[in-house]
Amino acid sequence: MHIYDIITKKKHGEELTDSEIEFFIKEYTAGNIPDYQASALLMAVCLKGCTDNETATLTQAICDSGDVVDLSLLGDGTVDKHSTGGVGDKTTLIVAPIVASLGAKVAKMSGRGLGHTGGTVDKLESFPGYKTSLSPEDFLKQVKRIGIAVIGQSGNLAPADKKLYALRDVTATVDSIPLITSSIMGKKLAAGSQSIVLDVKYGSGSFMKSAEASEALARCMVDIGYKRGRRVSALITNMDVPLGHAVGNILEVKEAIEVLSGKGPTDLREVALSLATEMTKLSLGKEALTARRMCEDAISSGKALKKLVEWIGEQGGDSSLALDTSKFPSAPCKREVLADRDGYITAMNTEAIGLASVSLGAGRVTKDDVIDFTAGIIIEKKTGDAVRAGDVLATLYSSSEERLDEGERVYLSALTLGDDRPEELPLIHNVISK
Amino acid sequence: MHIYDIITKKKHGEELTDSEIEFFIKEYTAGNIPDYQASALLMAVCLKGCTDNETATLTQAICDSGDVVDLSLLGDGTVDKHSTGGVGDKTTLIVAPIVASLGAKVAKMSGRGLGHTGGTVDKLESFPGYKTSLSPEDFLKQVKRIGIAVIGQSGNLAPADKKLYALRDVTATVDSIPLITSSIMGKKLAAGSQSIVLDVKYGSGSFMKSAEASEALARCMVDIGYKRGRRVSALITNMDVPLGHAVGNILEVKEAIEVLSGKGPTDLREVALSLATEMTKLSLGKEALTARRMCEDAISSGKALKKLVEWIGEQGGDSSLALDTSKFPSAPCKREVLADRDGYITAMNTEAIGLASVSLGAGRVTKDDVIDFTAGIIIEKKTGDAVRAGDVLATLYSSSEERLDEGERVYLSALTLGDDRPEELPLIHNVISK
Repeated sequence: MHIYDIITKKKHGEELTDSEIEFFIKEYTAGNIPDYQASALLMAVCLKGCTDNETATLTQAICDSGDVVDLSLLGDGTVDKHSTGGVGDKTTLIVAPIVASLGAKVAKMSGRGLGHTGGTVDKLESFPGYKTSLSPEDFLKQVKRIGIAVIGQSGNLAPADKKLYALRDVTATVDSIPLITSSIMGKKLAAGSQSIVLDVKYGSGSFMKSAEASEALARCMVDIGYKRGRRVSALITNMDVPLGHAVGNILEVKEAIEVLSGKGPTDLREVALSLATEMTKLSLGKEALTARRMCEDAISSGKALKKLVEWIGEQGGDSSLALDTSKFPSAPCKREVLADRDGYITAMNTEAIGLASVSLGAGRVTKDDVIDFTAGIIIEKKTGDAVRAGDVLATLYSSSEERLDEGERVYLSALTLGDDRPEELPLIHNVISK
Repeated sequence: MHIYDIITKKKHGEELTDSEIEFFIKEYTAGNIPDYQASALLMAVCLKGCTDNETATLTQAICDSGDVVDLSLLGDGTVDKHSTGGVGDKTTLIVAPIVASLGAKVAKMSGRGLGHTGGTVDKLESFPGYKTSLSPEDFLKQVKRIGIAVIGQSGNLAPADKKLYALRDVTATVDSIPLITSSIMGKKLAAGSQSIVLDVKYGSGSFMKSAEASEALARCMVDIGYKRGRRVSALITNMDVPLGHAVGNILEVKEAIEVLSGKGPTDLREVALSLATEMTKLSLGKEALTARRMCEDAISSGKALKKLVEWIGEQGGDSSLALDTSKFPSAPCKREVLADRDGYITAMNTEAIGLASVSLGAGRVTKDDVIDFTAGIIIEKKTGDAVRAGDVLATLYSSSEERLDEGERVYLSALTLGDDRPEELPLIHNVISK
């Protein structure tokens, strides 16, 4: 079998066989196929697509390229959640303790932020002492004992994806439904949970710009997971505006705790509850309405917040911060960004808002950048809001005036103001299950 | 400017600007763009195509990536010829001395064979002592003195093409009209001749399988050359069967000399005369009928053969072999391939016949293989010929019985025999000039 022939086939839009796909993943991961051949194949996949069977085989091959986590000791109620990435998306910090407090088992590996999107592992490190890596035994033991553990992705989980993703990232071959599906689902299958809830974002802060494209991706992922014997749901949610008001690590953690305390912004609360409801339905076998009520009760009773405190403490973090968020450190410099006219915010370039947050120090441009946990943005006015000249649009937090200058410049470039109130888009476009 | 953005644009089918294309060629040649990004771009070009302007800019950038030969000292009558490659194609050995004998200036760089196609430089080395490399001064001096010199491609001619071609060859990105055009015409523009005649092959022995695809390629190349101020014609010629009877270096040289002696196979003679006629038209400004008659006279008068003898001798080769081809060495082993049934040859896989010749020792699988100049094939029966069981289909020449076994196996696999005489395809499908 020759990689040249595989590239040629895909270039002509033909379907690859299972063994051709398995050969590619195995030999590429082993370093026997050079990057320049892999990238030619990836571009052909982007432009010619894959059949359902090809995508399923690719996903399984990526899953099988490294360690496959065995969670069977934890029973049937294991549940995972994945977001395709957005700005201000701190839902894992809310939904994981909700469903763990209801009896689901959350044995989760999360990512770090890169570019305009943040990462759960970074947010968790806002709690001093929080351990983002545990031995496989300690990880399982903790989930068994308290129902939840969240760590960084283990070194040998889906190594094919790690290598492929790095290549896609520099060859403009990221936005392909079969490639995204196999990347996400390959990792999720390897991570071992029986139930998987996907939050598939669309809009200006997401790499899928339209709801239709996100829905197609969601259907593909749900289908693959179902074929591999998992219970999977996907929510198609709006990322045309940041989720909630807070962007930046400590700011987002505080906002998540607000939601767990029964407060917080409506949009964030609604997306989080919808995700938690799906997770409860799938992992605990509840009806939709029952599951929703259980999740709301977990918040109103304080059970979910208590689970967060237990979880952070168990994993070595300073959990007293979760009970009194005023104890979190705050940034030395801040600036209010003011409106220079009356009108409405008619659009936000949410990716640019993510980049404004990065330039304030809250994120990474390259993998080796160090994060400023106190940096970020509190957004006061979002798309659809009326503003008057002089109103505070947002407050920026950073370590220096220079960073604030740059952050303000980028933040303002992300906003469009106009005279007419824009049409409101639904927060949750659709739910897809199988 | 970032290569990532250039790949993205082309992936979305957008037109690249001149400066984006120039940036890519310059930085890739300089080693500042890695192969894996270049191959993603090449695949996107294969699948999304290029506009005429993109192809023209790419061609010029490839031309400008290294030395550009200045032939202005030789006047206006310089003429080059290029074949897209086939099996049994020894026309350069015929047309170059014909047109040189008529006063055109042939200052030509030729390639070596690789895979199923042969190369002119290898064929010329069938003459012991022939020097395939000359200093630029000696090269020009020889053309000035006797009207002809043919050498291997100089080291720094279109280095971008050298690098790109090596990458295309292993990433299944060869068969793209803009990439082929820019590769061929980039080199031909850099090689400096005022007139260029292209022999664009189609059929089973060519990488363009249909006449229509070859015609599209030819139009593109003619157009580019014209825009750069050159006189260009292209012949679309049939490579569904090998050209002439001989395949393999010495065998082909002998057949070329037969044609120059007024004999030889009709198809080879006709293609060679058509090419020489175009070269004469363009370089010497003659009408078609006049040019054709001049070329026929060059053969019948012996002027063309005399020019070949002069050229080979001038370039250090043993020219006595051209006057008495029986003095060429011959292969120690030969075998007749016999028909096992009555009928017609209904099709020849000409690429496979090229590979049969390679397995006999006449060509290279990898660049470092050493050629056996005596090896090859004399084809007795071609597509359309009637055969009876026991007829000799071809005679194979090689250095060992093992090689003959393999050559015979491959040769037979290339033939299809049937009961009905197949339709005859025209030898010259079209001539395209501008």
